[in-house]
Amino acid sequence: MKSSKTHAVRPIGHVHSPLKRPADAPKQGYEGAPNARVQIEPSFRRGLDGIAAGQYLLLTWLHQADREVLAVHRRDDLSNPLTGVFATRSADRPNPIGVHRVKVLEIESDGSLLVQGLEAIDGTPVIDIKPELKGER
Amino acid sequence: MKSSKTHAVRPIGHVHSPLKRPADAPKQGYEGAPNARVQIEPSFRRGLDGIAAGQYLLLTWLHQADREVLAVHRRDDLSNPLTGVFATRSADRPNPIGVHRVKVLEIESDGSLLVQGLEAIDGTPVIDIKPELKGER
Repeated sequence: MKSSKTHAVRPIGHVHSPLKRPADAPKQGYEGAPNARVQIEPSFRRGLDGIAAGQYLLLTWLHQADREVLAVHRRDDLSNPLTGVFATRSADRPNPIGVHRVKVLEIESDGSLLVQGLEAIDGTPVIDIKPELKGER
Repeated sequence: MKSSKTHAVRPIGHVHSPLKRPADAPKQGYEGAPNARVQIEPSFRRGLDGIAAGQYLLLTWLHQADREVLAVHRRDDLSNPLTGVFATRSADRPNPIGVHRVKVLEIESDGSLLVQGLEAIDGTPVIDIKPELKGER
């Protein structure tokens, strides 16, 4: 049974980062993002039980993205040919979901996580956290 | 600037798979999922330009998940302690987004992709496709 209806994504928290504008952020987390804090909303904190220091996938909603874009020049370099967004990691895409490989450094008592390697800007909605699987390392 | 509003995810396509029910599906793609076909809607096919055979991340909306669940017994085994969903890969979670590491085997002229290693069931909405980054391999 196939369904084409839309689904409402609810933020579970937000990113607090020294990166304030997209132009400040590296293209990828491994390119030198500063440590960031992920603040989880009180109503979702029960979902953090069992999270330990280590590698996780953090999913964000890239709220400043252009959802109408289907082709881009990779890394905003006009000398690169136009490429379909699904063949790139462009933030501009129909569903602008960021998949970030981060290292959780600390879990704080107020329900926030200190993470390394997150290139999302300050205020970005966080929509999911998952442990990495072996195939993803 | 933080925003707590919800965002509408639009399916870009659907999974066609011999897996018809969640009970048929392996817990993870590397545990032996059959090949599947990912059919992309005509209006989003421009976004596929540049996709080649190889490893990609496929994001799905796990439409049969229970979004109210915040803690689960891992792998549905009641002998495992209750664990927060963000410390597990449970489909049941506030935003049931599946992140699947798949191998694209063929790109067909009708805008469908033949993929290996996808454990999502038939009819699952596809919401994004991204190339893997080196840190994710």
